[in-house]
Amino acid sequence: MSHFIQTLNDAWQRTNSLLCVGLDPEPSKFPGALAGRPDAIFDFCRSIVDATAPYASSFKPQIAYFAAHRAEDQLEQLIAHIHAHHPGLPVILDAKRGDIGSTAEQYAREAFERYQADAVTVNPYMGFDSIQPYLEHQGKGVIVLCRTSNAGGSDLQFLETGGRPLYQVVAQLAADKWNASGQLALVVGATFPKEIEAVRGIVGDMPLLIPGIGAQGGDVQATVSAGRTANGTGMLINSSRAILYAGKGDDFAQAAAKVAMETRDRINAFR
Amino acid sequence: MSHFIQTLNDAWQRTNSLLCVGLDPEPSKFPGALAGRPDAIFDFCRSIVDATAPYASSFKPQIAYFAAHRAEDQLEQLIAHIHAHHPGLPVILDAKRGDIGSTAEQYAREAFERYQADAVTVNPYMGFDSIQPYLEHQGKGVIVLCRTSNAGGSDLQFLETGGRPLYQVVAQLAADKWNASGQLALVVGATFPKEIEAVRGIVGDMPLLIPGIGAQGGDVQATVSAGRTANGTGMLINSSRAILYAGKGDDFAQAAAKVAMETRDRINAFR
Repeated sequence: MSHFIQTLNDAWQRTNSLLCVGLDPEPSKFPGALAGRPDAIFDFCRSIVDATAPYASSFKPQIAYFAAHRAEDQLEQLIAHIHAHHPGLPVILDAKRGDIGSTAEQYAREAFERYQADAVTVNPYMGFDSIQPYLEHQGKGVIVLCRTSNAGGSDLQFLETGGRPLYQVVAQLAADKWNASGQLALVVGATFPKEIEAVRGIVGDMPLLIPGIGAQGGDVQATVSAGRTANGTGMLINSSRAILYAGKGDDFAQAAAKVAMETRDRINAFR
Repeated sequence: MSHFIQTLNDAWQRTNSLLCVGLDPEPSKFPGALAGRPDAIFDFCRSIVDATAPYASSFKPQIAYFAAHRAEDQLEQLIAHIHAHHPGLPVILDAKRGDIGSTAEQYAREAFERYQADAVTVNPYMGFDSIQPYLEHQGKGVIVLCRTSNAGGSDLQFLETGGRPLYQVVAQLAADKWNASGQLALVVGATFPKEIEAVRGIVGDMPLLIPGIGAQGGDVQATVSAGRTANGTGMLINSSRAILYAGKGDDFAQAAAKVAMETRDRINAFR
C-alpha cells in the first residue's frame, strides 16, 4: 500500500469523515470583501480550507481555476498552507492529465514536485504508459478517470467492448494490471450509483474519488451504499460548489463549514 | 470553416510546408550558453522558432514542459512572440485537457485568453460536453485525441466496440456529431499509417495533427500518403525533439533549422 493510500486510510479513521472538499475558486462568486485583492483566490481558498478542515478528510484543488487566472503561485501557497496547518489531510490535485511518457514525466513533476500534491487525477485514454511516469513518484497517489458524472460521460465510457461498457474495462485494467505498486484510485461519478457498485465489485478495496453529490445532484445514500468498503470507508466523496458558495456574504467561511459538517453527517448516516 | 482551419489552409499554401515544430523545452538539454539564465526556456524556444519559421506552417508548444518549471510566463511570452514575428503561423497549445463543462470553460480561457493559442488539444474520454466549451470560442481550433503513437495507446483506443476499434468511433463522432462549427481536427500518431488512412477515410478533409515522425520513428512516406487530402495538405506533421535537440552547441538554432528544412522537404517529396 502506498503512502498516499495509507494517509487516506488514516485520515478516514481519524476524522470520521469521507468528505473531500473540492477547491474550484471562481472570483466572480467571491464575497465583496475579497474583490480586487491580489491574492483573493488564495485568501478565499484558505478561509474555506481552515473552516471546513474539521469536517473533511481530504482537499481537491482543481488546477484549471487557478490557471485561468494566472494564479499558479496561489495554488502553490494554498497546498503548502494545507500541509502546514492541516497535516495528515491529503491534497489531490485535480488536473486530469494524460500524455505520452516523456510529457507525463513533466506533468508528474508539476503535480508532485512543484505543487507537492499527494495525488493527481489522470486520464486513461492514452493507456498505461501515460500513467506509469506518475507511479515512479513513490508514495504518491494516481487517481484514474473511470466513469464521469457529466452527461457526455457516456459518449465513450458507455460504449460496449467485450460484453461490457468501457469504464468497466478501465476499472478491470486498473485492478488487474496497472496497480502493482498499490498507488491507484479511480474517479467514479455519483450520478450513477449502480455503476459505482459495478466498479466496487471489480476493484476490491481500491479508493474511489466520487464527485457529483453536491451541485451535481447525486444521491448520498445510494452513493454510500454502492461505494463503501467493508469497514465503511473507501470513498473520497467530493463536494465543491455546494460548499464553496454556500454563503455569498462575509460569513462565507462559516456557511461553508456548516454545509461541510452537514454533508459529512449525511454521508456518515449511511455508512 | 473556422478561422483556425482557414489560417491553417492559408499557411499550408503560403509556406509550402506541412511541418509543425513542437516546442518541448527541456533545460537539461539546452546548450551551455543558456545555462542559468532566468528566461532560458523562452530564449531557447524563441531561437528555435525564429530559425525554423521559414520551414514550418505551425508551432506546437507543449504546456507540461513549461508548467514543470514554473515557466507559464515564458510560455505567454513565447506565443506572443510567434504572433508578433511570424503572423499567420498558427500556434497549437498541446495541453490534452479534458474535464466537465464548468472546468473545461476555465481550461478554454487558459488556452485562448491567457495564452492566446489558436488551437488546443483535448482528450475525448469525457465526451462531447467536455469539448463544447472550447468551441464556444469562435474561430479557435479544437484538436481531439483520436489515435496516439505511444505503446499504451492501444490499451483503450484499440478496444473493439460496434465492430471497430474505439479510435475509429472517436473519428466518426468527431466527423458526424461534434463538428457542426467546423472547428475540429484530430490527433493521429504517425506510427500507424494504416490507421491514419482509416481515420482519413472517416473524416474527409478534417485536419490531422500527426506526431511521431521524428524521435518516435514514424515513416514519412507512409504517413504522407495515408494522411494527405486531395490537394496534398490536411496534415500538421509534428516533429519536436529531432529538431529542438539537433545540435548540442551554441549553433543549436542553425542545426534545428537544417533539420526542419530537411523534414519539410522529405514530407514534400511525397505529397
